[in-house]
Amino acid sequence: MTAADLHRDSIIIDGLNASWFMSDGVIERIHRGGATAVNATIAAWHNPEDTLDMIGRMYHQVDRHSSIAMVVRNTEDIHAAKASGKTGYILGFQDTSPISDKLSLLRAYYVLGVRIIQLTYNFENRVGFGCQAPEDRGLTGFGREVVAEMNRLGILIDLSHCGQRTTLEAIDRSEKPVAITHSNAAAQFPHPRNKTDEALKACADRGGVIGALSFPAMLTPNLPAKVDDYVGAIDFLVERVGVDHVAIGPDFMEEMPEEVVRVVLSGLPLDVVTFMQSIPPVQGFSTAADLPNVTAGLLARGYSPADVQKIMGGNWLRLYGEVWRT
Amino acid sequence: MTAADLHRDSIIIDGLNASWFMSDGVIERIHRGGATAVNATIAAWHNPEDTLDMIGRMYHQVDRHSSIAMVVRNTEDIHAAKASGKTGYILGFQDTSPISDKLSLLRAYYVLGVRIIQLTYNFENRVGFGCQAPEDRGLTGFGREVVAEMNRLGILIDLSHCGQRTTLEAIDRSEKPVAITHSNAAAQFPHPRNKTDEALKACADRGGVIGALSFPAMLTPNLPAKVDDYVGAIDFLVERVGVDHVAIGPDFMEEMPEEVVRVVLSGLPLDVVTFMQSIPPVQGFSTAADLPNVTAGLLARGYSPADVQKIMGGNWLRLYGEVWRT
Repeated sequence: MTAADLHRDSIIIDGLNASWFMSDGVIERIHRGGATAVNATIAAWHNPEDTLDMIGRMYHQVDRHSSIAMVVRNTEDIHAAKASGKTGYILGFQDTSPISDKLSLLRAYYVLGVRIIQLTYNFENRVGFGCQAPEDRGLTGFGREVVAEMNRLGILIDLSHCGQRTTLEAIDRSEKPVAITHSNAAAQFPHPRNKTDEALKACADRGGVIGALSFPAMLTPNLPAKVDDYVGAIDFLVERVGVDHVAIGPDFMEEMPEEVVRVVLSGLPLDVVTFMQSIPPVQGFSTAADLPNVTAGLLARGYSPADVQKIMGGNWLRLYGEVWRT
Repeated sequence: MTAADLHRDSIIIDGLNASWFMSDGVIERIHRGGATAVNATIAAWHNPEDTLDMIGRMYHQVDRHSSIAMVVRNTEDIHAAKASGKTGYILGFQDTSPISDKLSLLRAYYVLGVRIIQLTYNFENRVGFGCQAPEDRGLTGFGREVVAEMNRLGILIDLSHCGQRTTLEAIDRSEKPVAITHSNAAAQFPHPRNKTDEALKACADRGGVIGALSFPAMLTPNLPAKVDDYVGAIDFLVERVGVDHVAIGPDFMEEMPEEVVRVVLSGLPLDVVTFMQSIPPVQGFSTAADLPNVTAGLLARGYSPADVQKIMGGNWLRLYGEVWRT
């Protein structure tokens, strides 16, 4: 079986994509890359009104591309996307700002199809602390209620940008396995956005999944990074937590408008911002259209086709199925 | 066939109910009255955040009463509600304030199940003018876009509280029939909230439906009003526009919290407020549990069982089917 055949015949899930989905080119490239489903970040720091705006626009955009795109709400929908050759869009948030201070909004967003929510972005919010906050005092009281309500509704908890204590407390309190959708191992590449072995193992021990991040600055000091560096990051995670708990979470930010980039980088030191904006993309893995190169890279590194399928989508599918089922 | 048999065997639709659905008693009384479906007002002057809060709470409330309640999104769901002996809740707004200034929010609310939206409450908003506004300059530019987008999505336009010009312009611009969910004929009982013959006929000519209002102050000067006064208001509308275009829209406001009542009455002259709060409820039709009395009253007045079925639900069902189908 060739890498192309394996990729084509597998359920491929992009565990975190923060591209500007209002661009037709983004929708087309994601489809070209063979993604069966993608965790599509449609809000982060947004208030409820702006979040509804993004959700409404996302549904419009999927309507406009109905031959290659659909919104998916459960694993049956992901299988249906595969069967019909479409990309299934999972609506996701990268912050709990869209729920304001009201648990009831989680119920409304659930009806809207939101199935993955990261508890915090880089800094402090009503729920907990991000990895760039000066200190991390863990989940707030409201944060504990949010974890319980997400468990009850069947919304996957994502801890990628959370601080160490918030990450560990959420894993501990959650009655369902959680996701670290887009982070690498800090033991391989030290950075606040990468995760300690303690966090990685706690996540995996409870049945969670970690998606390897392809953002070059958290991948390798030898720039430009190459596909094999990304495969190496996957490999390192697999050594830490086993092949059943590692997946992909590239964090593409294709065609992100300048004003969105500004918010994403806000609060970070200027030299960090300058550095991040100067980094060349990963060679051979610069857009979601390049996903087949990761499948090929994993096979070349000696992974069995069955293990490649787990990493490229099977592990996300298993986790989604466990959490979304209520 | 007895009135009770006819009521039990028919699809009964309460065309406008503004009660406090967070009360278990309200949900139970609506079910006891035999409503197959109810246009449940869950927002009016609310901003998007507070609207999402009400929607989330409404879904919770329906979850808690799943043996007698369900949310309905299409006419198949209403038939399913009938078959299972549940009340189907249609989510409705009595103002376009929940969409702020963004058409995209209509798409999001559609996904949330919102199927009926009144363009304005009593006063001016971004879309048009209410019946208590000092003047009515008709639909705004944004209002025209809202009408077109509601047509496209399949959300029923309600004009009950709109001013005369806004009402006529919306009927004229809408490519689909519209609703006046809860108003009587001004020719019978003059009041800004009741509708001119011109408006009633324009609505009916385009295939729309008018729901007779049971609010005593717009029903009869001879208080306390009785069920037969309500049947008389239906009768008067039928004479004006024919039996295919008249239905029920009682506008019960059961257990409405004091702070909600204050907003409902805001902007009205103090003597009007004092008067409205002093009016005794309609005898024999003070809660949705009394719906069977209207069926009996219509039969007693000589309506055929087939015509009673149209008024008590069939006409709403036909209109919903025409508008919600996209």
